[in-house]
Amino acid sequence: MSVTAAQGFLAGGVSAGLKESGDLDLALVVNRGPSRAAAGVFTSNRVQAAPVRWSRRVLADGRISAVVLNSGGANACTGPGGAEDTRLTAERTARAVGVGPDEVAVCSTGLIGVRLPMGRLTAGIDAVADRLSADGGEAAAVAIKTTDSVHKTAVAAGDGWTVGGMAKGAGMLAPGLATMLVVLTTDAEASAEVLDAALREAVRTTFDRVDSDGCMSTNDTVLLLASGSSGVAPEPAVLTAAVHAVCQDLARQLVADAEGASKEIEVTVLGAASEADAVEVGRSVARNNLLKCALHGEDPNWGRVLSAIGTTAAVFDPDRLDVAINGVWVCRDGAEGESRDKVDLTGRHIQVTVDLRSGGSSATVWTNDLTAEYVHENSAYSS
Amino acid sequence: MSVTAAQGFLAGGVSAGLKESGDLDLALVVNRGPSRAAAGVFTSNRVQAAPVRWSRRVLADGRISAVVLNSGGANACTGPGGAEDTRLTAERTARAVGVGPDEVAVCSTGLIGVRLPMGRLTAGIDAVADRLSADGGEAAAVAIKTTDSVHKTAVAAGDGWTVGGMAKGAGMLAPGLATMLVVLTTDAEASAEVLDAALREAVRTTFDRVDSDGCMSTNDTVLLLASGSSGVAPEPAVLTAAVHAVCQDLARQLVADAEGASKEIEVTVLGAASEADAVEVGRSVARNNLLKCALHGEDPNWGRVLSAIGTTAAVFDPDRLDVAINGVWVCRDGAEGESRDKVDLTGRHIQVTVDLRSGGSSATVWTNDLTAEYVHENSAYSS
Repeated sequence: MSVTAAQGFLAGGVSAGLKESGDLDLALVVNRGPSRAAAGVFTSNRVQAAPVRWSRRVLADGRISAVVLNSGGANACTGPGGAEDTRLTAERTARAVGVGPDEVAVCSTGLIGVRLPMGRLTAGIDAVADRLSADGGEAAAVAIKTTDSVHKTAVAAGDGWTVGGMAKGAGMLAPGLATMLVVLTTDAEASAEVLDAALREAVRTTFDRVDSDGCMSTNDTVLLLASGSSGVAPEPAVLTAAVHAVCQDLARQLVADAEGASKEIEVTVLGAASEADAVEVGRSVARNNLLKCALHGEDPNWGRVLSAIGTTAAVFDPDRLDVAINGVWVCRDGAEGESRDKVDLTGRHIQVTVDLRSGGSSATVWTNDLTAEYVHENSAYSS
Repeated sequence: MSVTAAQGFLAGGVSAGLKESGDLDLALVVNRGPSRAAAGVFTSNRVQAAPVRWSRRVLADGRISAVVLNSGGANACTGPGGAEDTRLTAERTARAVGVGPDEVAVCSTGLIGVRLPMGRLTAGIDAVADRLSADGGEAAAVAIKTTDSVHKTAVAAGDGWTVGGMAKGAGMLAPGLATMLVVLTTDAEASAEVLDAALREAVRTTFDRVDSDGCMSTNDTVLLLASGSSGVAPEPAVLTAAVHAVCQDLARQLVADAEGASKEIEVTVLGAASEADAVEVGRSVARNNLLKCALHGEDPNWGRVLSAIGTTAAVFDPDRLDVAINGVWVCRDGAEGESRDKVDLTGRHIQVTVDLRSGGSSATVWTNDLTAEYVHENSAYSS
């Protein structure tokens, strides 16, 4: 159901010829109102793609009427010409759907450093605007795929209102978001301020805690659009919970479909002196290439977990660290605990638990294993 | 020639049965004086192996008479029992060579979290002490190998004096050192203070700028021992230059032999506002898995360089970044520059140059590509 699960939204996806494969590569999401309130979160990478720079400005007044998204080219590191391409994309979309260009957010994903074929793109915009429908959410979700093997959608139902969303992201997944484009929609009534608070809270513990390969993108964008067409204004906390549920669902789909991944790894840090400490340790463990290789090989190599913890500035005593892998406490007091032979790593899901024994805070970071397929995809595919 | 290139040193290597393969796995280096001045640099990982904790204490008075090194087990994360094993190792070595246990540094490398077989190890210490010789440097260098495909030695000749060294290290190479054990020897006369300053300056721009896989070890140790037997006391700057030359040579051998590497990558950052900025950017580029995959596939994907630069806090303007790959400025002003088709990546050596255009400082970081073989070695070998 994707972005059209909520009332008041139309969407569509077409092949504009941006991808050589001829697959769908251009998506459009339109908010028909009555509200156009919106919120967004963007990459924290200082090298930001032209569409990110544009969409930040569009969102400054808390209003978005339409989002146009293309795969087949990131329009990042493309200089003043790339910025002009984004402006033209927004203007063409605005004309096609009858809104102002300053109400149109733009998202692009694909190869960095290459200009978009604007002739094909603008023709595609007209084509997708002609095919908008209340059932178009699936096509839009398909059109934003890059190396994704499946398209990703999620929905959470409120009491008379709905939050829906679509995401793309497969490689370059890291904090400060990932190579992800996410559009969330709701027919709830909510101000831009409420949407912004809900989105930031939801992203903080979902997309921002996905760390596939430690690499941060130039194009990450998460947008939340509210049409208000349900006529229901849920409590902010209730809305936040629904947005969080959709983000959580999509974030897990991103990790599950990460390039070349054969294991989904959940790193939970307990007993931290602060949430920041828990996140720092979780990220360090989740980013450790050696551990990710070991888990790929179904080797419960807890020494690599301790090595990773040791590189952080978190509060802990090296001689009081406990580590469990899939529930078996293989490390106790910084040394060998239960037998590693008890650990079963044959399944796809792996749970690494670190107890810092230094406080009451915790956090979970999601990642995946490092595989030969990851190397192959990223040495063969120029993205 | 290794650690016995300098006068006043004896060394040897034996098979103590620590490795199942039966390969050499125990090395001993003895300083016969007249001086026993020494300096050392250890891992900055907060989880430190028992031998690292021991050797730090031994070195507190600037004196080392012997170094005993084993492969086949890191003795890291082994609790109080592991600390006791290290103490027994030093005591047995001290007795075998006729010095005090507080003059014996201990280094271990191999699997984390497993106790050493002390019966074999102590018998091996007696055996290697019986075979010490002025030609034993090569055997010692071979005995400290883990996944190294070749042993690593280097020598620099001064005017009447010499600096020699051996190193092991293949995976888990990262700043704050690597999974490396390095022993350097010189027959120059120098105080512990002069040796310490020389070693720190040399390590800072060599071993500390090697970043193979971003993973930092629990056991890294670099020791410099001076026998003074040449009777020559070189100027500190001259001694530092020789120590630097040996460290540089060994550091490059480590990168060249990194697990599964098919490309050696030199990342040079120019135009930085400070050396710290240059190093931060260099490390971020050197650690980017996506770039390392691309270079493995001989794809001059400069967008991934910009993505990596963008994650740092260094001073730069995203629209004024220049990047060259093997001398071709494929990125100018943060956008496409010369044609990427001009870049030849077929050779083993790759030069990535980043110009931040924000100052006069520079730095170089060495790394290697990310390959399917790296994944294989580290998922199959429990280290």
